[in-house]
Amino acid sequence: MLPSNNPKLKSWIEVSPESNFPIQNLPFGIFKTKEILPRVGVAIGDFIIDLAELKKLGVFNALNFDTQVFAKPYLNDFISLGKKTTRAVRERISKLLQERNHELRDNLKAREKVFHKIKEVEMLLPVRIGDYTDFYSSMEHATNVGSMFRDPKNALLPNWKHLPVAYHGRASSILVSGEDIYRPNGQTKADEVEFPSFGPTKQLDFELELAFITHQGKPLGQNISTKEAEDYIFGLVLFNDWSARDIQKWEYVPLGPFLSKNFASSISPWVVTMDALEPLKIAGPDQFPEVLPYLKFEGNNNFDITLEVYIKPENSNETLVSKTNSKFLYWNMAQQLAHHTINGCNINSGDLMASGTISGPTPDSYGSMLELAWKGTKPLKLISGEERKFIHDHDTVIFRGYGEINGIRIGFGELKSKVLPSITPK
Amino acid sequence: MLPSNNPKLKSWIEVSPESNFPIQNLPFGIFKTKEILPRVGVAIGDFIIDLAELKKLGVFNALNFDTQVFAKPYLNDFISLGKKTTRAVRERISKLLQERNHELRDNLKAREKVFHKIKEVEMLLPVRIGDYTDFYSSMEHATNVGSMFRDPKNALLPNWKHLPVAYHGRASSILVSGEDIYRPNGQTKADEVEFPSFGPTKQLDFELELAFITHQGKPLGQNISTKEAEDYIFGLVLFNDWSARDIQKWEYVPLGPFLSKNFASSISPWVVTMDALEPLKIAGPDQFPEVLPYLKFEGNNNFDITLEVYIKPENSNETLVSKTNSKFLYWNMAQQLAHHTINGCNINSGDLMASGTISGPTPDSYGSMLELAWKGTKPLKLISGEERKFIHDHDTVIFRGYGEINGIRIGFGELKSKVLPSITPK
Repeated sequence: MLPSNNPKLKSWIEVSPESNFPIQNLPFGIFKTKEILPRVGVAIGDFIIDLAELKKLGVFNALNFDTQVFAKPYLNDFISLGKKTTRAVRERISKLLQERNHELRDNLKAREKVFHKIKEVEMLLPVRIGDYTDFYSSMEHATNVGSMFRDPKNALLPNWKHLPVAYHGRASSILVSGEDIYRPNGQTKADEVEFPSFGPTKQLDFELELAFITHQGKPLGQNISTKEAEDYIFGLVLFNDWSARDIQKWEYVPLGPFLSKNFASSISPWVVTMDALEPLKIAGPDQFPEVLPYLKFEGNNNFDITLEVYIKPENSNETLVSKTNSKFLYWNMAQQLAHHTINGCNINSGDLMASGTISGPTPDSYGSMLELAWKGTKPLKLISGEERKFIHDHDTVIFRGYGEINGIRIGFGELKSKVLPSITPK
Repeated sequence: MLPSNNPKLKSWIEVSPESNFPIQNLPFGIFKTKEILPRVGVAIGDFIIDLAELKKLGVFNALNFDTQVFAKPYLNDFISLGKKTTRAVRERISKLLQERNHELRDNLKAREKVFHKIKEVEMLLPVRIGDYTDFYSSMEHATNVGSMFRDPKNALLPNWKHLPVAYHGRASSILVSGEDIYRPNGQTKADEVEFPSFGPTKQLDFELELAFITHQGKPLGQNISTKEAEDYIFGLVLFNDWSARDIQKWEYVPLGPFLSKNFASSISPWVVTMDALEPLKIAGPDQFPEVLPYLKFEGNNNFDITLEVYIKPENSNETLVSKTNSKFLYWNMAQQLAHHTINGCNINSGDLMASGTISGPTPDSYGSMLELAWKGTKPLKLISGEERKFIHDHDTVIFRGYGEINGIRIGFGELKSKVLPSITPK
C-alpha cells in the first residue's frame, strides 16, 4: 500500500465525510481565476492547492524535476515526467497535508497564496488530448445494443469476447464539465423511406463511461504488456460520449460511428490517479473463452466505482436515471492498453482512452438512454412528471462517480453538461 | 488566377522541366540540418528556402504577422495565421524568385544563408497533427471492396452515395516519408477455424490517398459550407494509409478499423498549397442520386493529379504497380469538409483529412494491393521476377504525384517508406 492510501490518514484541512476529495484522493486538475493564469492544482476537501505557488516553498526540491510543469495550462508536461515522478509528487503533497506535518500548516502566509476554494475557481480541460480512443468493453451494453439492432440470439459479434473492440474518436471536440454542447444536425433515414433527410438529431443520448489518461509510451513498433500497463496510465476521469442515435444508425456501416459522436464529448475536470484508485481494485467478470496470451493478466484489474447519471430539465430538479458500477466491465484497462499497442501503435502523454458505455446487469443500471428507455419504448419518468426517451434541449446531464473503502470516499466530483438547441447551418 | 500561378513565370533559380517544384508550386515543409534546428522551408527546383533566414531580410515586413512562425518545428503556427496571410507569403516568395526581381537574386551573401540543396537537408513531419480523419470517397475502391467482402451485386452500401463515409484514425502514428514502418502483430481468424490466432500480419497493404491539411476552423457547433471550405484548407500531401487486411477483417465489425490501421500511416513532407493546385481543378463524376443541399457545390472541385505507386524489394529496382488520378474521386474535399462539420464538429490548424484509397476504373489503376492482386488471386509480377500479393518485409513502397498544366508540373515529390519485420511482443 502506498503511504498516501492509508485509510487512517487525516489532514489538518477539514474534509467532510461526503467529500469526494479526502487526503487519500488528491486528484490533479487545471484551474484559473480572474487573477491567475491556467495552472496545475490538486483538490482536497473544498479546496484547491495551487502547485505553481506551492513549489515556490521548495517542497519538491528533493524530487529533482522541472517544476515549471505546474505553471502550464495542461497536465501533459507533468504527466510526461512519468509515473515515478507523478507518484512522488502526490506522496509529497499527501505528507504536507497530514495532520502532524507543520511545514505548510504553520505557514499562514504561504497557505493564503497556495489555497483557493474550489467553488471560486474555474476548472479547465485538464489535458491537451492527443488521440482519443473509445472502447466497447461492457458486455451488458454490447449485448443490449446487439439485441436491439441485430439479433437478440446472437447479440455479441464473434470477435467481441476475443478482443476489446474499439475505435478512434475525435479529440478536438472534447469539452470539460460545465461547457454546453450543441444538439448536432445530420443525415438520418427512416427504414420506410428511400432517401435520407436532414435536421437536428431527434435521438440525442449520453454514454456513461470512464476514461484513462496515459503517460508517454514506447517507440512505435513496441507493445505495452498487461503487466506494464499501469506504469503508462496516469489517472481516470468521468466521460460522457455524447451520441446521436439516428445519425449513427444511418452512417456507421461499414467504418463505424463518425458524425454521430464527434460533435462533442465531455470529461470531468479532476484526474483521479491510478494510485488513489488502487484500494478500489476488484476482480472483473470471468473471461470465457480463454483470451490470447497477450490479453492475459494477473491480479485484480477492475475498479469498484459507483457511477450515477442524473437528468435535470431546465427549471427543475435532477432525477437519478441510472446507477451502475465500473466493476461490471468485461475488459479491463490493462487489457485495453495491451491490445491498443500490440500492433506497435504508440501512445503519448495525455492520450485518452474511454471504456465504452458502462451498463450493469439490471435495467436501472444501463449507461445510455437508448438502453434505459429501450429504443424509446419505455420512456423514463422524471420527478418533474416529464418523460424522456432521449435528451431534450436545455436538459443538463450530470454524471457522478466514487468508490468507498474503509468509509473513505475516493471520487471524481461531477461531470455536468447542458444541451443547447442546434445552430442552423450556414 | 493568382499571380503566382501564371504559367509564364520563370525564376532566376534554374528549375529542370521534370522538377515537381517549379516557381508555380512553392510547397511548404519543415527541414533541419546538422547545424539548423527544425524550421519552415519552401521548395523551388532542387533547393529549399529557409524562411527563418529569409525573413531577416525584411521581405515580409509589409505583411504584418509574427515571423517567428518560421522558426517553429511544425507548420501549425504558420497555418494558424489563416488563408489570407499564408497566401500572401507564398505570393511574396513567388515575386522574390521571379527572374527580373533583384532583391534576393543580387544579394549573394543572403542567398548563401537562405538556400540549401534539398538533398542535403532532412525533411521532417510538416505538421503536428491534431486529429486525423480518413474518408472513403472513391466509388471504384468502395465497389471493389464491397464486391470482394460483401455482395458484388450490392457492393455499395445504401448510405454511400448520400454522404462521404469517413472514420477517425490515429494521429500519433503518422510518419513522414523516409521513416521505416514495422509490420504489425495482431489477431486474425480464418473462416474455417473457431478461434483467432496471433502473429504478424500476412496481408500488409498500402492505400494510395491524398490528404488535406486544415486551417483553424469555426467554434464548436458551427458548420463550414462547401462554399467556404477552401478558406479552411491549407494544402495537400500524399498519404499512405498502411493497412493489415487480415487484422481488419476480424476486428472491424461493428465499430470500424482500429489496429489494422493505427500502427502507421505515412505522408509526404511537402505540403502543396490549395493555391498552387488551383490550375489543376477539374469536374468530378456526376453525383446521382442528388445530394442533400449541404453537400451541393459550385464549380470544379476535383483535381487532375496523376498518382503512381511503386514497389521496390530490397536490392532490386522499383516496379510501377499502379497509376491512377485523383479526378476519379466521387466526393470532393469541399464536400468532405462540409460533411465533417455539418454536425458542429470543430477543426484545428494542422488537422489531416485523407481521401480514402484512390482507385481508378481499370485494374492497373487500383490504389491498394488488395484490389491490384484481387485478394491474392492475381499476384503482381515485379521487374525482378518476384511476385507480390501483399507487401513483404524490406519492401519499399513509393508514391509519386503531380499534375501538369501548360507544360508545368505541380508535384508532391515522393512518399517512400520501407517495411521492417515485426518486433516480437514483450
